[in-house]
Amino acid sequence: MVAVPERTQVLTMAGSALGPLFDPASIAVVGASADRRKWGYWLARGALAGQDRRPVYLVNRGGGVIQGVRAWRSVEELPATPELIVVATPPAGVRHEVSCGLAVGARCFVVITTGVGHPASVAEELALAELAVTRGARLLGPNCMGVVDASSGLQLCWGDVPAGPVGLVSQSGNLGLEIGRLLGRAGQGLSRLVSLGNQRDIDAAEVLESLIEHEPTRVIAAYVEDFRDGRRLMRAVGAARAAGKPVLLLTVGRSDASGRAARSHTGSMVSGLDVVDAAAAAAGALRLDTAGQLVDTAVALLAPARSRGRRVAVVADGGGQGAIAADTLAAAGLVVPPLRAGTVARLHELLPPAAGVSNPVDLAGAGEADITSYVAVARTLLADPDADAVVLSGYFGDYAASTPELAAAETAVASDLAAVSERSGRALVVHSMAADGSPALAALRQGGVPVFERIEHAAAALAGAARWASLTPAELPGFTVARPAGDGGYQSSRELLASYGLTFPHARFVRDADGAAAAAEEIGYPVALKAMGLAHKTEAGGVALGLTGEQDLRSAFRVMVHRTQAASFAVEAMAACRDSVELIMGVRQDPSFGPVAMTGLGGTTAELLADTAIALAPLTAERARQLLESLRHAPLLHGWRGAPAVDLDAAARILAAVSLAGAQHPEFSELEVNPVLAHPGGAIALDAHGVLR
Amino acid sequence: MVAVPERTQVLTMAGSALGPLFDPASIAVVGASADRRKWGYWLARGALAGQDRRPVYLVNRGGGVIQGVRAWRSVEELPATPELIVVATPPAGVRHEVSCGLAVGARCFVVITTGVGHPASVAEELALAELAVTRGARLLGPNCMGVVDASSGLQLCWGDVPAGPVGLVSQSGNLGLEIGRLLGRAGQGLSRLVSLGNQRDIDAAEVLESLIEHEPTRVIAAYVEDFRDGRRLMRAVGAARAAGKPVLLLTVGRSDASGRAARSHTGSMVSGLDVVDAAAAAAGALRLDTAGQLVDTAVALLAPARSRGRRVAVVADGGGQGAIAADTLAAAGLVVPPLRAGTVARLHELLPPAAGVSNPVDLAGAGEADITSYVAVARTLLADPDADAVVLSGYFGDYAASTPELAAAETAVASDLAAVSERSGRALVVHSMAADGSPALAALRQGGVPVFERIEHAAAALAGAARWASLTPAELPGFTVARPAGDGGYQSSRELLASYGLTFPHARFVRDADGAAAAAEEIGYPVALKAMGLAHKTEAGGVALGLTGEQDLRSAFRVMVHRTQAASFAVEAMAACRDSVELIMGVRQDPSFGPVAMTGLGGTTAELLADTAIALAPLTAERARQLLESLRHAPLLHGWRGAPAVDLDAAARILAAVSLAGAQHPEFSELEVNPVLAHPGGAIALDAHGVLR
Repeated sequence: MVAVPERTQVLTMAGSALGPLFDPASIAVVGASADRRKWGYWLARGALAGQDRRPVYLVNRGGGVIQGVRAWRSVEELPATPELIVVATPPAGVRHEVSCGLAVGARCFVVITTGVGHPASVAEELALAELAVTRGARLLGPNCMGVVDASSGLQLCWGDVPAGPVGLVSQSGNLGLEIGRLLGRAGQGLSRLVSLGNQRDIDAAEVLESLIEHEPTRVIAAYVEDFRDGRRLMRAVGAARAAGKPVLLLTVGRSDASGRAARSHTGSMVSGLDVVDAAAAAAGALRLDTAGQLVDTAVALLAPARSRGRRVAVVADGGGQGAIAADTLAAAGLVVPPLRAGTVARLHELLPPAAGVSNPVDLAGAGEADITSYVAVARTLLADPDADAVVLSGYFGDYAASTPELAAAETAVASDLAAVSERSGRALVVHSMAADGSPALAALRQGGVPVFERIEHAAAALAGAARWASLTPAELPGFTVARPAGDGGYQSSRELLASYGLTFPHARFVRDADGAAAAAEEIGYPVALKAMGLAHKTEAGGVALGLTGEQDLRSAFRVMVHRTQAASFAVEAMAACRDSVELIMGVRQDPSFGPVAMTGLGGTTAELLADTAIALAPLTAERARQLLESLRHAPLLHGWRGAPAVDLDAAARILAAVSLAGAQHPEFSELEVNPVLAHPGGAIALDAHGVLR
Repeated sequence: MVAVPERTQVLTMAGSALGPLFDPASIAVVGASADRRKWGYWLARGALAGQDRRPVYLVNRGGGVIQGVRAWRSVEELPATPELIVVATPPAGVRHEVSCGLAVGARCFVVITTGVGHPASVAEELALAELAVTRGARLLGPNCMGVVDASSGLQLCWGDVPAGPVGLVSQSGNLGLEIGRLLGRAGQGLSRLVSLGNQRDIDAAEVLESLIEHEPTRVIAAYVEDFRDGRRLMRAVGAARAAGKPVLLLTVGRSDASGRAARSHTGSMVSGLDVVDAAAAAAGALRLDTAGQLVDTAVALLAPARSRGRRVAVVADGGGQGAIAADTLAAAGLVVPPLRAGTVARLHELLPPAAGVSNPVDLAGAGEADITSYVAVARTLLADPDADAVVLSGYFGDYAASTPELAAAETAVASDLAAVSERSGRALVVHSMAADGSPALAALRQGGVPVFERIEHAAAALAGAARWASLTPAELPGFTVARPAGDGGYQSSRELLASYGLTFPHARFVRDADGAAAAAEEIGYPVALKAMGLAHKTEAGGVALGLTGEQDLRSAFRVMVHRTQAASFAVEAMAACRDSVELIMGVRQDPSFGPVAMTGLGGTTAELLADTAIALAPLTAERARQLLESLRHAPLLHGWRGAPAVDLDAAARILAAVSLAGAQHPEFSELEVNPVLAHPGGAIALDAHGVLR
């Protein structure tokens, strides 16, 4: 039983245990091929490209010579132990190859093959991983598209991947390739690419952890559909952020269709995108929508002078492109503020009278008259303390194409622009209508200036960088799971929540009309009467409010018994609070991220307003207050149109308590308080219920 | 006085009068140059490229030979009359050149020169245009970037412009060039390019009119900042739509910054973007945000099989790209619906067991195994009546790059895909991660299939096409301006609006407490008391509601007199309507588009809800009803949570009446009724005011 401690060690060593995956001492390509239409060709070609660093053995049961190299007939035949074996055989052969590899002492397997097992099955894939892991080895896949490590010369993948500073872990091979392509076109590339496949052993969180200490990786990108232990993944994100490495997260679930697809693709429950967003925000990751948006943002974050704020100064040669740029930046959530007086005065000196010296700046032909105007204007704008970044939009980059006489000057200006930005410590971003081959654009990229073909890409990139800078990750409070409590009914939920400090109106639980009358007498009229044991008691006629006397109460009781057939009732004091605002607060259990707290505006139009906010639970009172303040209708809480403000701290305390109760009681898939009445003198819970799993 | 009838004729002939601009019998380039850094070089080069169609004369006061052609020293020296003269001299010489041109009989001037006059002035530019027009000639510019007509071989512009089916009129030269570039990269181009410059004679509306009958123009694109007679421009848009030519409108004003820039750029008042959107929607134009978005949409609208609906079937080789595609399409406002059972069954037959046969379809390697799978799947999806369009996303287009053996097959598949789409009459759109040189992508484009580098571009294009198809342009009711009425105060606004059919509560206007008491007695308690002559009477304490008796009334009167110092008061019946919804209705005057009707949700949280809708006034009752239905909170009008529905027709009649009153009384910059109480039994106006210009 030597295997168990090794496995434990592997798990606790986290990323560093993936050494054999990223920089194996030797490689065997099982299923190597001479046919470019086959995976075995690309794996062999890629592995052989790293032959100067490590021995590479090609294995093909036909033997012979492949790509100029001897092919061995089996792993057993190899003259030495391959540390990593990449498998691209037909499905039926995979288990045999892994067993043989383990027998000769291989430490890591990358299984490209899809449909392992006959028929392909999850159980067979898990057994395969278990086989490897119990022998102290690791397994990537199956159904993956391989692994690339630019710094170790490892290239086990289809096609070529441009090298650069982005570490990419992807649950979709093709998306990984697409991101690589787009990065390459932007003059960037990948430090590592890990295609996770079906994650039967190595998973997204572990790879992400490995990228934190990987020096050549400066930005981390991840495509994840299935978050598994979402909190672990987010801890890795937080650690990456602490190490100064932005994590850009691509996922799906914005539409019903993608949810359908992800479920069928990964076979697992999918977290709601709102939950992923809440988790990502708490951990400090930037969630993005498309490969293009991710790449644009990565490019902006890789610039030596990274934009850290939302205020952008725009310069264009012509009013139209400047105005479109300003609109597009503003639509992306950025701000195009007026410039400081000193900046305006300096621009006046630099530019002809027809130029626009507000923000956006319109060179009005100054660039054409003297191409170095671009540098002077950029320098001026980069010195304005009100601008976090400068966007140059439009013609620059294209002078050489129509006027070769200007080529040298334009390229020199491009280099100067890069230098000016880097010296200023502020970001310069260029949108150019020039074609890709432009030498000026190459010089800009060479100098670290992000260049975009479309102004909307520049805007998304700067907005992403600003959003990343603005995230304020926070440690989640720890919590322990408590002993299950209650049945989810009103009475037991009240008791549970009261034990967490919630205040409810005085209530008595009764079984008949006489009991109700006695309870009301004790509590004092007016009272509320509620039928117990109903899922939706308001809709079922199980709630009567503001009963003013015994006759009123008995009459309401008769009607309610008749309509609901309930056997138990609550009689409660009416909470009469002037200037109150109705809120909803609750917790639900997410399959990957655990307890998630929710709050929103209540009242009869709540559904129409659809104003809710969520965060991972439990919440501190401070975070609960922030969540309440993030509601669109938060101004109602602060005293709308002359009304007094409600006691926001009291509301926040209730929300924090509900979030802790839900976290400690995962037996409830949902626990909800609706409404909570927030008023100037405090906050009170008026109803509660739970849904047992 | 021969000039006047000629000018009249020019104006009434509209677009066709621009013949000499688009296909001049002969051209003189004044300021021709051999220096590629100068406009005179590009104008001469472009003009000379059309020499086989028309004589071209180069004019440069230095004479000599330019670009291999004799240069004349002045227009007077020319051996024949040039029909069109393009002027690129320094500003001081422009008037002289135009005068000389007129003297020799030129019919059209294109003035590139910026800063005409010393100092450059609007008056000087207007005088220049007047000089030309009064002599029966036309003038484009000044400060324009020229004109291109691909079908007449006219190329008076900087650089080269790709030819194609898009007619482009632009108030910004560089944006025009940018749109041309992006179209070229998408395999499309321009039929005409008109850079408007300062529009001192020829303007956007006239050029747009000219494009309607221009056969090679299939899609019209316009960048406009200054809408001038906006209703005329929109009539031209409507005529283009009726002729089957989509108009894609790019404008600015989404941000404060662009408004600032446009004002300084064009020197004119800028219409709010909401007004432009309302006008564009009414005329059937599609308003877009960026050059890239415009080009993507144009490409989709130019496909032989144009998408007409929102339902999209997605196919990708891999689950990730399909899911991202589905999300991105949904975020753009499209729908990715489940497929019909027959389609699913057919896909099951076509694809391996691991494939995803819901929407999005995941080929799961079928494309790799047999590249013709793409055709079979596309044919199946294009036959599903629930799909208006099919998006193929991901790897297709790139097989040849890594596997030259597949090049011929991939290109054949591309051609088949195009044929399948065209035969089906349904749109196929491809997002490919392949690089631009891919032969398969070229074959797709050749066959009319739009190809995009990013899925978000494909989504924007299809969403734009669907939005264009869904626009339902409507003839605006005509209206005549009436004699000015009233002072904008409550009493006169009530009277004006009552004459348009609005119902207000019974009211009497009084000056003292006794008068108020007598009025209340006549009207019957409870009553409302309002102070007259205040701009914001509620905030000033000038409104007291629900006064139940004389003592109550007199007490409220005393307080109100003291607080407001008003000299006149209204006593009104209280409108007590159960289940009512408060609405705001009004009209304001836009500098370009005239009267604009507005409605929105009222009540104390109206400002927070920010739920308003606008449309060009006047409105028919039907259009008014649509506007009310377009509010986000419209469900409140239909009977929310069991309440009875309000009388929407009565509310719509009031809105239509208010819109007509505002249209006929432009002396009010604003005319507003707030609130209108819509209730199950009708609708009643409770207050009104106007703001005189």
